[in-house]
Amino acid sequence: MNTVYSIVDSIRYEGPQSSNRLAYRWYDAQRVVLGKPLVEWLRPAACYWHNFCWAGQDPFALGGNLFERPWFSGEPLAAAQMKLDAAFDFFQRLNMPFWCFHDRDVAPEGTTLRESNAYLDAVLERAALKMQDSGVQLLWGTANLFSHGRYMGGAATNPDPEVFAYAAAQVKHVLEWTQRLNGANYVLWGGREGYETLLNTRLAAELDHYGRFLAAVVEHKHKIGFKGTLLIEPKPQEPTKHQYDYDSATVYGFLKRYGLEGEVKVNLEVNHATLAGHSFEHEVATAAALGILGSIDANRGDEQLGWDTDQFPNNHVALVPAMLEIIRYGGLGAGGMNFDAKVRRQSIEPTDQLEGHIGGLDTLARAFLCAAALHESGELDRAVDERYSGWSGELGRHIEAGASLDDLASRVHQLGLSPQPRSGRQERLENLVNRYI
Amino acid sequence: MNTVYSIVDSIRYEGPQSSNRLAYRWYDAQRVVLGKPLVEWLRPAACYWHNFCWAGQDPFALGGNLFERPWFSGEPLAAAQMKLDAAFDFFQRLNMPFWCFHDRDVAPEGTTLRESNAYLDAVLERAALKMQDSGVQLLWGTANLFSHGRYMGGAATNPDPEVFAYAAAQVKHVLEWTQRLNGANYVLWGGREGYETLLNTRLAAELDHYGRFLAAVVEHKHKIGFKGTLLIEPKPQEPTKHQYDYDSATVYGFLKRYGLEGEVKVNLEVNHATLAGHSFEHEVATAAALGILGSIDANRGDEQLGWDTDQFPNNHVALVPAMLEIIRYGGLGAGGMNFDAKVRRQSIEPTDQLEGHIGGLDTLARAFLCAAALHESGELDRAVDERYSGWSGELGRHIEAGASLDDLASRVHQLGLSPQPRSGRQERLENLVNRYI
Amino acid sequence: MNTVYSIVDSIRYEGPQSSNRLAYRWYDAQRVVLGKPLVEWLRPAACYWHNFCWAGQDPFALGGNLFERPWFSGEPLAAAQMKLDAAFDFFQRLNMPFWCFHDRDVAPEGTTLRESNAYLDAVLERAALKMQDSGVQLLWGTANLFSHGRYMGGAATNPDPEVFAYAAAQVKHVLEWTQRLNGANYVLWGGREGYETLLNTRLAAELDHYGRFLAAVVEHKHKIGFKGTLLIEPKPQEPTKHQYDYDSATVYGFLKRYGLEGEVKVNLEVNHATLAGHSFEHEVATAAALGILGSIDANRGDEQLGWDTDQFPNNHVALVPAMLEIIRYGGLGAGGMNFDAKVRRQSIEPTDQLEGHIGGLDTLARAFLCAAALHESGELDRAVDERYSGWSGELGRHIEAGASLDDLASRVHQLGLSPQPRSGRQERLENLVNRYI
Amino acid sequence: MNTVYSIVDSIRYEGPQSSNRLAYRWYDAQRVVLGKPLVEWLRPAACYWHNFCWAGQDPFALGGNLFERPWFSGEPLAAAQMKLDAAFDFFQRLNMPFWCFHDRDVAPEGTTLRESNAYLDAVLERAALKMQDSGVQLLWGTANLFSHGRYMGGAATNPDPEVFAYAAAQVKHVLEWTQRLNGANYVLWGGREGYETLLNTRLAAELDHYGRFLAAVVEHKHKIGFKGTLLIEPKPQEPTKHQYDYDSATVYGFLKRYGLEGEVKVNLEVNHATLAGHSFEHEVATAAALGILGSIDANRGDEQLGWDTDQFPNNHVALVPAMLEIIRYGGLGAGGMNFDAKVRRQSIEPTDQLEGHIGGLDTLARAFLCAAALHESGELDRAVDERYSGWSGELGRHIEAGASLDDLASRVHQLGLSPQPRSGRQERLENLVNRYI
Repeated sequence: MNTVYSIVDSIRYEGPQSSNRLAYRWYDAQRVVLGKPLVEWLRPAACYWHNFCWAGQDPFALGGNLFERPWFSGEPLAAAQMKLDAAFDFFQRLNMPFWCFHDRDVAPEGTTLRESNAYLDAVLERAALKMQDSGVQLLWGTANLFSHGRYMGGAATNPDPEVFAYAAAQVKHVLEWTQRLNGANYVLWGGREGYETLLNTRLAAELDHYGRFLAAVVEHKHKIGFKGTLLIEPKPQEPTKHQYDYDSATVYGFLKRYGLEGEVKVNLEVNHATLAGHSFEHEVATAAALGILGSIDANRGDEQLGWDTDQFPNNHVALVPAMLEIIRYGGLGAGGMNFDAKVRRQSIEPTDQLEGHIGGLDTLARAFLCAAALHESGELDRAVDERYSGWSGELGRHIEAGASLDDLASRVHQLGLSPQPRSGRQERLENLVNRYI
Repeated sequence: MNTVYSIVDSIRYEGPQSSNRLAYRWYDAQRVVLGKPLVEWLRPAACYWHNFCWAGQDPFALGGNLFERPWFSGEPLAAAQMKLDAAFDFFQRLNMPFWCFHDRDVAPEGTTLRESNAYLDAVLERAALKMQDSGVQLLWGTANLFSHGRYMGGAATNPDPEVFAYAAAQVKHVLEWTQRLNGANYVLWGGREGYETLLNTRLAAELDHYGRFLAAVVEHKHKIGFKGTLLIEPKPQEPTKHQYDYDSATVYGFLKRYGLEGEVKVNLEVNHATLAGHSFEHEVATAAALGILGSIDANRGDEQLGWDTDQFPNNHVALVPAMLEIIRYGGLGAGGMNFDAKVRRQSIEPTDQLEGHIGGLDTLARAFLCAAALHESGELDRAVDERYSGWSGELGRHIEAGASLDDLASRVHQLGLSPQPRSGRQERLENLVNRYI
Repeated sequence: MNTVYSIVDSIRYEGPQSSNRLAYRWYDAQRVVLGKPLVEWLRPAACYWHNFCWAGQDPFALGGNLFERPWFSGEPLAAAQMKLDAAFDFFQRLNMPFWCFHDRDVAPEGTTLRESNAYLDAVLERAALKMQDSGVQLLWGTANLFSHGRYMGGAATNPDPEVFAYAAAQVKHVLEWTQRLNGANYVLWGGREGYETLLNTRLAAELDHYGRFLAAVVEHKHKIGFKGTLLIEPKPQEPTKHQYDYDSATVYGFLKRYGLEGEVKVNLEVNHATLAGHSFEHEVATAAALGILGSIDANRGDEQLGWDTDQFPNNHVALVPAMLEIIRYGGLGAGGMNFDAKVRRQSIEPTDQLEGHIGGLDTLARAFLCAAALHESGELDRAVDERYSGWSGELGRHIEAGASLDDLASRVHQLGLSPQPRSGRQERLENLVNRYI
Repeated sequence: MNTVYSIVDSIRYEGPQSSNRLAYRWYDAQRVVLGKPLVEWLRPAACYWHNFCWAGQDPFALGGNLFERPWFSGEPLAAAQMKLDAAFDFFQRLNMPFWCFHDRDVAPEGTTLRESNAYLDAVLERAALKMQDSGVQLLWGTANLFSHGRYMGGAATNPDPEVFAYAAAQVKHVLEWTQRLNGANYVLWGGREGYETLLNTRLAAELDHYGRFLAAVVEHKHKIGFKGTLLIEPKPQEPTKHQYDYDSATVYGFLKRYGLEGEVKVNLEVNHATLAGHSFEHEVATAAALGILGSIDANRGDEQLGWDTDQFPNNHVALVPAMLEIIRYGGLGAGGMNFDAKVRRQSIEPTDQLEGHIGGLDTLARAFLCAAALHESGELDRAVDERYSGWSGELGRHIEAGASLDDLASRVHQLGLSPQPRSGRQERLENLVNRYI
């Protein structure tokens, strides 16, 4: 099954001057930056679904399959094993340290959950060996609770409690496999946890059910002793009209409502942020401020398109602010940067997938290096410290300690306070950042 | 000062067949609907700022003043009193039961806060008499913490703690006046509580300062014994790039973070909802589900424009779903429906303002009547009950009581659960709603 | 094959008071309005693709088939004939006077174009009989130049001229069939005539090729004597990043560039208008002003979603302005109103499709009746005439006759012209429209 | 009047390693690139309005003046002359080779047009001397036909023909001054040529009036012998709901309709492109393909905000594709790149304006240098040539020569054409571009 990529050996770092399109120009994995190898900051991953399951169908069902893969036909379990071989060959060629999967990506769905689990067991047993042989590690696993018809109206938030039960059983199995494969995280993406129309929806009840579901997952994690991080992946809409995990701030409120804010973090996707009307750095900064920043789905959207295009990142300048937030947060911990990205539909050659990942990983690396240099200089931090310096003074400390309106009004009147505006220096800071790019 | 509207007497209800453009066709204030007069469901208000302060400047500073009002020139305090007369004349002609104001709408800003307060006192003393004479009540008061240059970088979230103190002092004064005028609510709109660029912003510290500010307002409310509701008004951006009160779900998380969710509700504006990427009914339903629905700023945006156009509502069909959520919530309590709406810039005649409010109030009334009839029929509720009926069964109750993943997985396997999708009936329900329109 | 809808007889008009969900409440086909039966104004059509080809797949490939139709399996040609029976049964039950199709909707694709044509011939021969028996007429036919892999990079604008040739051959066959079936129009939808990235695109050359393609279609139309109208269907993006037929104004410029503005009109879709950043009434008014208004694809988008949701219209108020433009234009001529609309994915019962069409057609009828009454009153037209009355005066006529800058400057100076703004009366006119709703 | 910027001397090029925030790092004006000095490719300009007229008011009228400039008070004509001095001091400090103005930016409006003209004459007489002394040239002049109340409903498209006449007289005067100042172009921005609501608008008549107005300007240009280029500046909305000059393609159709496509080109603004739903490179490529690319308004919008933020460009990667289109077009001819950009409202220090322009010009220069290197390599062009190579073959030439549907269908059938998809190589080309960045 190495035929499709057999033209290339492993992709290696060759430096910015290289014109080899099958080499990294910026991703120098072992280069030490801010005290750690670059690979430990980025912890990059390739995903299973876009690379090995998607057949190039058009979004919007306006075009059929374009990609020919040998495992798209034949006996399902044998095809799944063939797909697994191709996937690990791909990960290794890219020197990608991590991978990610949904249960239904790696193994076929059976006619009963028991049969589906057996299929999954068969493929993941072999995946465990592949991981051991190759050294590729699992960034996260997840259960697909959105493709099958039973989930059309939600999984945890389905109007039918049998669907809740089925989803719970499915998550149990994948969570346990994620533990067994030493997954660093387990992700819950609520692509159907939302509504199509409020007319047929009990919003409050669905939120409660979703909270209960998540609590059950947390309980099970502790019961089995899984050490990884549980992650919710926010997305505002698509496939449903509205999803409950709209963005970081919404997920935070949800976690607080159900007392889970210490147990669950977020997996933030660039394109999901922009669909929610936010910059990616906003989502990262918000999650960091709220203490729930977990992991990253690295990709980019299209500024003119209103859906999740899942393109590879290719503009490092645009990613520097988010990288800076990650550095300030101390890195992603158990999280990483998974390429939830796919080649464009017209990119029908297998090598296009390699080049997509190479360009994407170089973009992440270059953005990180810029942000690290900026951070190391301290120039930006000094400017911000200066701007907020008043909060280190007596009045600032007094306010933070809980001053009352009466007290503050007295001060204003007695001291004749008349605060004067000072420039926010936005252009200066933007130029400063560009000096490190 | 009655000259501008002197052509009309008070606006009265004449019924749907009336072709009098200075009459209500749907707003029959005393008509009893679902057990209460319509006016008690809607509690409509006219606002001060759009009607008496805005001079028809172009947004985007591309066009100058167009509206000529006698109070736009002259000695500031005398002009403010003239404006007050015109405002109450206007409220009375419309038979509008409520009004709303910012401190800087009704009285000029002085060179010190003490002087500003004195101006405000002078005008509001007279407003109190006007209210007594006319019977017009105060839906809410608020402090303008966004227009003056000192607030350019935020009020509670300013990098300078002196600005926090100044804002606190200003809110104290307006909150106390709101109490004295028997205001039903006090609103905080955080139009500058956000950022222009993350490059110069300490997000986490600003959130904490904002939380502290709000806590101080809550404490002062209790200290002075104000019985009204404190309301935050969510808006995603505009005037800043990002505001911390983005939408209902974000405000809920913020309130939970600072332990204020039992103290503060939201004032939801239609156009703010749509700018945040939500339908208005979504914001209403979300706030209702989270228990923080407080009041409404009634207007509409333009579907093609990306800013807050604050137009009068004119499509009752579009408002029926939100009205239905309000009815299910039991009404707005102390809240109401304030026309945060302005005539278009080319509508330079004073009568245009009357007609804007008449059309807007008729639209609210008509939407409410449709929603009430639909609610009374029970047809929609029965369809939703049927859809969720499984949650009243044994499995549903078991799950809600806290079933574990292990337990649910056992059930799935033992009972061979294989839940079957059932139609969500969206088109049928949409047609059903249209039967009541 | 009547099993799926066998529970219902033909759908009939029962009037606004009817609570029968399988009856029309507003669509009274033979009611004479403005001198013509309603059916002749609307000329409604049901489409083949959404109703009989779509299997309920999720957009975004996040969910599989949900709809079970007997013709989704089995020998392809026999299945196509079974599908045809179901389609005409559906059209007749709805009393839908028109239908629309793509070649690949009605018949399978063969391994060569000759074989595909033979399949199409076989099914359309039978369709001709069905049309004769049922009285259902063809609003338009079209060739699917977007689903097959050969079209992934465009049809007329493909980088490979062989694809252009293949598309030309395909259009020839469908255009001739459209003529034979007495189709009132022939549609070209350029879903792949655009680009994914400018990096690999020769924009000017592709425009020229597209112009040449369209000219060849025009020439062929005249050669074979087809009397129907050729229509281009604008859409801004989706499935490609950018499509050349962005909106009405863009198509007009394109037609002018290639000298085809007298030969081709536009088929305007509501949801395509909104994706292009326009109101639907804007697109209709623009096409009318430019003389290229041809036909309508009736549906609605979702204001919060950035893709083509193709929902059934359900808000008649929103459609009144567009209906008014159509009335002023004198109706759509050979055009009609095709429901390019599909039920939501969770609406898995066949009856949902009937109810979608019933609600949609009632919405169109109700909107048209409101617009007709408004038009008949003359109230709106009088207001607009008054606003522009200056253009009937001497100065207006002088300007329209071609006055020079020098001449006009002299007048301004000599007459001391100082034009005064007059209210645009937007709120008054909005209220006026609501009196007819 | 040099006080505000007196801390700095002229801004000079110091190279990428410079950390001097008052120096250019990339804009090396005389560096020869692709055969011309960089300054001749870019022809950068500073504008009058954002820098010297805007007082830091908030868009949306939510905040008052923040910038203190000595010319904001005092006798109007004297203040205007003081402003002129400051402006030329600014241009010279920046070594900016060009400037741009509206008539009402440089001189006050009088009570009659005659008086306004006299004010303008007084200031522009002095500006002519300033230009001579400084060497700063005029990229373009324009008349402000949008700020004064008389234009609230349009200038050329006003319902009142007196407004049309007034606008014509105003344009005559500014066009003649532009000629006298050797302006390279004259711009028409139709910020009020559009509508707020179709309800009160005669769309077709307004388009005709606008066409007539533009024709009169063309005639006057030829009459007086002005050699510069006439430019229309597309913008989709803002300040009106819809403007007739929506985007490049719309303007092209408008010019064709009125036979003016050989006389008028477009001035494309980055932020106007994005508001219209296009990438900037799309607008540039479209105008180039249609032969109407004239000049550029260089700025950037905010991806999350729905209005014209007019920020300084700061991401050179994002501008490379547009620069590449400009290079392929052979440069902008008489056009240039005007900074229609303003500092953020909190940037209240005069030096912020300098830094905004420095960062902006460096961004343009850096983007141009990247694009030039990519262009010079020929790598991208070769890939595109290869993709379209079929159009140089027999079939391609035959099609371009006008092959009929019959002819092409015969070829398909006889040759058994079955075109095979080939990869569009998007990721490879994106990576290729990044090699030059």
